[in-house]
Amino acid sequence: MEDKNLEFRRRMAAFYEGVGDFLPHLSINCVIFGFNGEKLKVLVTNPFMTKTWLIPGDFIFKSESIDEAAYRSMRTQLGLEDIFLRQFRTFGESDRSFSLEMDEMFQLTHVVPNDYAWFTRRFVTIGYYACVDLQKSNPKPNVMFDSVRWIDIDEIDMLGFDHEDIVREARRVLAKDIMDLPVIANLLPREFTIPELQKLHESILDRDIDRGNFRSKILRTGILVKVGERQTASTRRPPGLYRFNMQQYEEVLQEENKIGF
Amino acid sequence: MEDKNLEFRRRMAAFYEGVGDFLPHLSINCVIFGFNGEKLKVLVTNPFMTKTWLIPGDFIFKSESIDEAAYRSMRTQLGLEDIFLRQFRTFGESDRSFSLEMDEMFQLTHVVPNDYAWFTRRFVTIGYYACVDLQKSNPKPNVMFDSVRWIDIDEIDMLGFDHEDIVREARRVLAKDIMDLPVIANLLPREFTIPELQKLHESILDRDIDRGNFRSKILRTGILVKVGERQTASTRRPPGLYRFNMQQYEEVLQEENKIGF
Repeated sequence: MEDKNLEFRRRMAAFYEGVGDFLPHLSINCVIFGFNGEKLKVLVTNPFMTKTWLIPGDFIFKSESIDEAAYRSMRTQLGLEDIFLRQFRTFGESDRSFSLEMDEMFQLTHVVPNDYAWFTRRFVTIGYYACVDLQKSNPKPNVMFDSVRWIDIDEIDMLGFDHEDIVREARRVLAKDIMDLPVIANLLPREFTIPELQKLHESILDRDIDRGNFRSKILRTGILVKVGERQTASTRRPPGLYRFNMQQYEEVLQEENKIGF
Repeated sequence: MEDKNLEFRRRMAAFYEGVGDFLPHLSINCVIFGFNGEKLKVLVTNPFMTKTWLIPGDFIFKSESIDEAAYRSMRTQLGLEDIFLRQFRTFGESDRSFSLEMDEMFQLTHVVPNDYAWFTRRFVTIGYYACVDLQKSNPKPNVMFDSVRWIDIDEIDMLGFDHEDIVREARRVLAKDIMDLPVIANLLPREFTIPELQKLHESILDRDIDRGNFRSKILRTGILVKVGERQTASTRRPPGLYRFNMQQYEEVLQEENKIGF
């Protein structure tokens, strides 16, 4: 424990050497969504030497745009490349602050130079979300984190600070965006079954969907192409395997809405 | 001119006395939409002693949330109360800066104390939009502005900094939001004609809409109630006057989308 404590202070000192290069009072946070065939999942990290679970986040260098900060952070903190990040909301309540929980975690204020006291004060954070294929994406945390893992969307009340609210809002925006953007495709492997697609919709929209209704509606749109059947040990009829016809998918999303003209 | 110059420096000095109370490098900007029966309009301000036209904006006190800053700013800068502000996007390119244009405007850097140099450096701004009834709303600029006026949505290339981009993005979000929120109602007087409603949709969506198609579609939704006819000097058949059935309007907006289930 003594060693870890020392190591923590060494890392924090290294961090504070560069802290003047950041925009004060500002951060970015990323909600990374995945899907395991059953549930919507969220990527969470456990900062070094803490017991707190958080969604990934970072500061913004004065020399980079907020979008660049989000992409750099995913790359350098987690090794995630080529993901599509979408800014969805900025969180700026006047009582958003690291100080209380950080103090609890490690008496952090003791190692914070006065000039950089903003770090323990109020924070405005810019929220991004991404949808990734859980099977392909392999996040590897850098030295600032003890570990990283996927949790169920139903487990987000375990998150520290106001990160539960941030994830909840990201999911709300995602539920709207699936009507406009082909984000669903990013959450699925190349080939999938219709029941999997239905479960993904149910998990994003947070409600049950009638099975027959879903199947006929989704097939009618023409956005799915059947590519075979999933091999199972069961003697029952094997479920059909599908992939997206992305061109048709994009076209359907462009169609005018019910009260559009 | 000499007097105005002095007055400007007096006001800036007063401003800088309080500048330490703001979150550095952060601002809010508000796109206020109105509709004059023909075109979508945007409220713009002309800061005191400058030739630049900007959308309204302000800084964020360390003691207030970003939403509170937006509402306070609309109230104290323009006298606008009871408007609904919706946060739509944060703008954070690394080259967003007041310095160049501010320098041009008034050699402002000369009056900026060193401690508050952030004011002339990089800015991240949080964008809000509002929809108001142009006939009822009567914005009155405070002492920091020479004047305030409504411009056509087609004239926004006259705006300084990147405010044209901010308005363009706000309109894009508004065009999506009209499918989910009854924002159209805020832009119209209580009673209006169907051609006016069509022109408003065309102005938001930035494309022509077929007249007969619009009329039949909108009447079929049941969101309009006929309340009479508009008196005109013409001998032609007077146009019908309508108001929204807000309950039905809200219900129609709640309906599931074409690929919703």
